[in-house]
Amino acid sequence: MPLPDSSQYIPHLAFDSVIFGFSKGKLKILLMEYHATGWLALPGGFVKKDEDLENAVKRGLFERTGLTDIYLEQFHTFGSMERAQPNYMKTILQANGHPVPDDYWMLDRFFSIGYYALLDYEKVNLTPDALSDSIAWYEVETLPELIFDHDKIVQKALQTLRENLDRKLIGGNLLPERFTMNELQSVYEAILGEKLRRTSFQRKLLSLNILERHEKLYTGKSHKAPYLYSFKR
Amino acid sequence: MPLPDSSQYIPHLAFDSVIFGFSKGKLKILLMEYHATGWLALPGGFVKKDEDLENAVKRGLFERTGLTDIYLEQFHTFGSMERAQPNYMKTILQANGHPVPDDYWMLDRFFSIGYYALLDYEKVNLTPDALSDSIAWYEVETLPELIFDHDKIVQKALQTLRENLDRKLIGGNLLPERFTMNELQSVYEAILGEKLRRTSFQRKLLSLNILERHEKLYTGKSHKAPYLYSFKR
Repeated sequence: MPLPDSSQYIPHLAFDSVIFGFSKGKLKILLMEYHATGWLALPGGFVKKDEDLENAVKRGLFERTGLTDIYLEQFHTFGSMERAQPNYMKTILQANGHPVPDDYWMLDRFFSIGYYALLDYEKVNLTPDALSDSIAWYEVETLPELIFDHDKIVQKALQTLRENLDRKLIGGNLLPERFTMNELQSVYEAILGEKLRRTSFQRKLLSLNILERHEKLYTGKSHKAPYLYSFKR
Repeated sequence: MPLPDSSQYIPHLAFDSVIFGFSKGKLKILLMEYHATGWLALPGGFVKKDEDLENAVKRGLFERTGLTDIYLEQFHTFGSMERAQPNYMKTILQANGHPVPDDYWMLDRFFSIGYYALLDYEKVNLTPDALSDSIAWYEVETLPELIFDHDKIVQKALQTLRENLDRKLIGGNLLPERFTMNELQSVYEAILGEKLRRTSFQRKLLSLNILERHEKLYTGKSHKAPYLYSFKR
């Protein structure tokens, strides 16, 4: 596969996506592993010269996950000089089997616009990009080292998500459409990285007026059946 | 004054600053008026090729306000195709007395990274840039029309400031170092665009544990002297 052609893309500008999913009580994100280096990075991409920024990010997410209707939030643009590490990028490109001229556009200084997404873990159909061997879920709690400043990007995404968690979850899809209070609490706990008290969590969430209550979830032990909730739209 | 030289700056990338000040019960922002057009715009600028993004924004603010120690917060990057309006930019540059070639870099599509600042209205020493006749304070409540998408940028800055106002004000300088509860309430009211009830405002703010109480402010009517507060650091 040929290298991306600079004439198609805005120079110096990239996006990186922190794609959150939730499964078995754990918060996870998607990481790519570059060919032959073992280096892990956030999935990202470039903006075409005639493309809206948001559409570029959606295109990138679709290519990696197969999903189209994704709740995305921009959280920060990273623009320090420290980001420029042409040697790493050169190694990545060469490991892909390409001779890389010293003035190749992908070796330049890049500004990266960070987006996060909250996805339904079950619905994702993962596809690595041309420079990667794999794309897979990794637990946020035990994240391996990432290249460039991608650790910092993940921490900033998490910080944004934690601020006003009560409002941030509403548009996303970390939970099924209808969920129990226990399921919601386990998402909160995974994102905040701490255990919460059941009674005060329930009291607080109900007081926020963001949940709609539905029928009970009947299982075997019907005398203990919990209510199902959804987010108000 | 010559036009900015493209070889010095990152192409396609700008920043715009929404600089808030507070005076006589009104929230205000700084706007520039371009030469000979009457067009109003946010103060902004470009990032030098070897300059950190944050330093570029601080440099721009220093040039316009004379202030160095400014609390800045990045809030959004604007990247839609609709932003590209080369004819407006061409008119602005020509009104400055320059012939502008069609391929001049400032006519390209630009991504703009939005920052807001909360300044002490009294301390600002205003200086217009090379393309502008003036820079001045305008009331947010009765803002005139701005060029490009600058109205949208202001609204997004306001929205960010309103979300979590309790936390956002702490680093800024909209108020003197020590202030009364009434003064704080009038800042809240100006930013939120609504009147608040005095007793519930006071109760809420004290419960947030973000204020430190100091001595009373003695004026003529000492039996009514209000306490002075500062934000906890």
